[in-house]
Amino acid sequence: MKSALAFLVAARRCEIRDLEQLALSCDLVQAVNELVHLLQRERGTSNLYLASVDARFDAQRAQHVAATQAAEAGVCALLDGLAPDAGATPGGGARLFTRIAMVLHALNGLPDLRAQVAARQCRAAEAMQRYTRIVSALLALVFEAADIAVDPAVSRLLVSMFNLMQGKEFAGLERAAGAGAFAAGRVGADGAQALSDLIEAQEQCFRRFEEFGTDDSLRQWHALQAVMPLTELERLRRRLMSSLSGGGLDSALADTWFDRCSQRLDLIHQAEVHLAQGLKDECARRIAATRVELGDQEGLLATLSATATDLPDVPGTGSDASGKAVGAVAAEPLGPRLTRSIVDTLQAQSRRLQQVSDELAAVRAALDERKFVERAKGLLMAHHGVGEDEAYRLLRQTAMNQGRRLVDVARALLDMSDLLPPKA
Amino acid sequence: MKSALAFLVAARRCEIRDLEQLALSCDLVQAVNELVHLLQRERGTSNLYLASVDARFDAQRAQHVAATQAAEAGVCALLDGLAPDAGATPGGGARLFTRIAMVLHALNGLPDLRAQVAARQCRAAEAMQRYTRIVSALLALVFEAADIAVDPAVSRLLVSMFNLMQGKEFAGLERAAGAGAFAAGRVGADGAQALSDLIEAQEQCFRRFEEFGTDDSLRQWHALQAVMPLTELERLRRRLMSSLSGGGLDSALADTWFDRCSQRLDLIHQAEVHLAQGLKDECARRIAATRVELGDQEGLLATLSATATDLPDVPGTGSDASGKAVGAVAAEPLGPRLTRSIVDTLQAQSRRLQQVSDELAAVRAALDERKFVERAKGLLMAHHGVGEDEAYRLLRQTAMNQGRRLVDVARALLDMSDLLPPKA
Repeated sequence: MKSALAFLVAARRCEIRDLEQLALSCDLVQAVNELVHLLQRERGTSNLYLASVDARFDAQRAQHVAATQAAEAGVCALLDGLAPDAGATPGGGARLFTRIAMVLHALNGLPDLRAQVAARQCRAAEAMQRYTRIVSALLALVFEAADIAVDPAVSRLLVSMFNLMQGKEFAGLERAAGAGAFAAGRVGADGAQALSDLIEAQEQCFRRFEEFGTDDSLRQWHALQAVMPLTELERLRRRLMSSLSGGGLDSALADTWFDRCSQRLDLIHQAEVHLAQGLKDECARRIAATRVELGDQEGLLATLSATATDLPDVPGTGSDASGKAVGAVAAEPLGPRLTRSIVDTLQAQSRRLQQVSDELAAVRAALDERKFVERAKGLLMAHHGVGEDEAYRLLRQTAMNQGRRLVDVARALLDMSDLLPPKA
Repeated sequence: MKSALAFLVAARRCEIRDLEQLALSCDLVQAVNELVHLLQRERGTSNLYLASVDARFDAQRAQHVAATQAAEAGVCALLDGLAPDAGATPGGGARLFTRIAMVLHALNGLPDLRAQVAARQCRAAEAMQRYTRIVSALLALVFEAADIAVDPAVSRLLVSMFNLMQGKEFAGLERAAGAGAFAAGRVGADGAQALSDLIEAQEQCFRRFEEFGTDDSLRQWHALQAVMPLTELERLRRRLMSSLSGGGLDSALADTWFDRCSQRLDLIHQAEVHLAQGLKDECARRIAATRVELGDQEGLLATLSATATDLPDVPGTGSDASGKAVGAVAAEPLGPRLTRSIVDTLQAQSRRLQQVSDELAAVRAALDERKFVERAKGLLMAHHGVGEDEAYRLLRQTAMNQGRRLVDVARALLDMSDLLPPKA
């Protein structure tokens, strides 16, 4: 029969195992972040390639594709080490594995997409959409990693990371939308609305990134802001918007717009790289700290074994049915100091685990908004037979008409889902 | 490189592993339930033994102690198979192990308690309190098992089970309080308040038990109600209460009260035994259903392997950097039907896991009330240096004075905890 302390030690070992699994998820997030950055770059270059006959984009696209493929290989190598039969299981098994399956399925479409782009058999808008779906699958994996993380400090950093990556993706979409408008010489009403939605969405994501980031990541972020071409970007944004009222756009600015946006994306990526390293460091720190605590408990266990080797640790044995044999000796067989120390350790551990669970719940609440919106979109797509963009537009329009927040409309829709007509 | 479907299969395997770990927790809950029932019986007999010089209780107590020890051995045998080094880890590792450690620590006090009772070196009230603390540690383990369960159906049954056990414990405490009052010939104002609190708390627990129980467990529960001595119990309760206004109690009724209460406890235990079996059946059913689904996915994976053995499943390989080599073949290398089937499976699994997560959150919310009250009690105990009963009384009194629910007062206290004076 194991003693109480043996189970306390076992609990610590479970925590270390959970943290090690979390560290695997963080490694994956780091590799996924690199892949997303390169896919965004490849998407941008593919767009330029499809939109022009300028030969310089041929070589650049091939070079960017090769870089993305190297990052894919990095992600795949990590995934090969992850599945249960490989011994290392990331935390939140089923949910993370399902997201990984969706990522792999999305990545499977890449060779075909690239071939069509290379042969100019695919329009720029369609290529854009297909690349964006792959990026979305990768972002959803990062989101899931944040949602299933078991350590509040790491979970906060993952929420921060997800928002930074999502904000950067909105910035990438803004680059494409703006480049299209400059090239066309004007922006339509829908295009202007889409641009201002993308700007608002970026800002919201970066606020969340800051809210959940560390002091260190914020310091670096503010330093990066100082070197970002923000003034020029705002001036170009203003030109885009004012073209709606008939101003007309100088299509020669398309390159300038694309370059400034790309420069900004690269700088945001520096923040991502920094944060990814911060994540790994935090995991390592938490594992090391838990190991020290495990060592303390093992020390206590050793003291206890040495003090009480000849005392029974099976409750009930050592006393007959009437319990007469034990008497005063058993009252505090380990001495009051050691008994006190065990009781304190037990209570502290129990309180700490409850606190961890509360803190995790608080951090995860920050992810609820996206969850509700994503699920409401899925519901509309299923019931109205519309695409993702149209579903989002429907939600957004309803929110604006009713003067309510997007997330509230999404929740109301989900609450009412039983009343919706059966799937078309 | 593993394919998307291989990760879907891995996700299912994770689910099966999680369910098997949950089944271990349910086995433990079943054994703990038996132990709690016998501890409650031993507590009652010990009370009778300490309160009288009637020799018939000597033998009965020894017999009950022996039965409890057998149940303890059953729990300990299960625990021996649980720790991580034994290969089988229950779900929610760290939290369950910590509760187990607290249970073992509490059980360690039993031999001493029994020895003191046997030697009549312990007053009835103190013995009662010490037995009750052990039962509380065991109930907290069942609560934790419910809170960390990963399957909504099983989680519902565990919440039902916890409430049935907690309600029965309140009924056991009522038996003791009532027996004391009958023996004393009167009930004081505090005693009457405690009795009516215990009755109210039982009813609340049994409502929760019904709310989360299955049709089957409710049918059996209603059948058991019909044979419970409820009318007589209510009559005796009325006598207890009316003695407050000076009626006086017939101390000869103490035995009748104790017997009727014990009869009811035994019948409630029948419902527990039934529910514990229902829990194990539900686990087995869920594991079997998930295995069938795993089989389906493995079938799909086999079809895919047979169809696509000569096709690359590594995204990116098979096409050179410019992606020119692949072309139309890669568009749907598995044929549209199979590709569709994989996409459907992926989306269905993702939706289902999200739904599981939502349902679990909804079931767990039913446990929040107790969590808040327990933690508020802990806070008061630490800051006011009072015992558990006194902490509860303070909370309860505040709730009554302010006309608010207990749980709301508990939450308000926890929210304000940063403003409390430092620990005395």
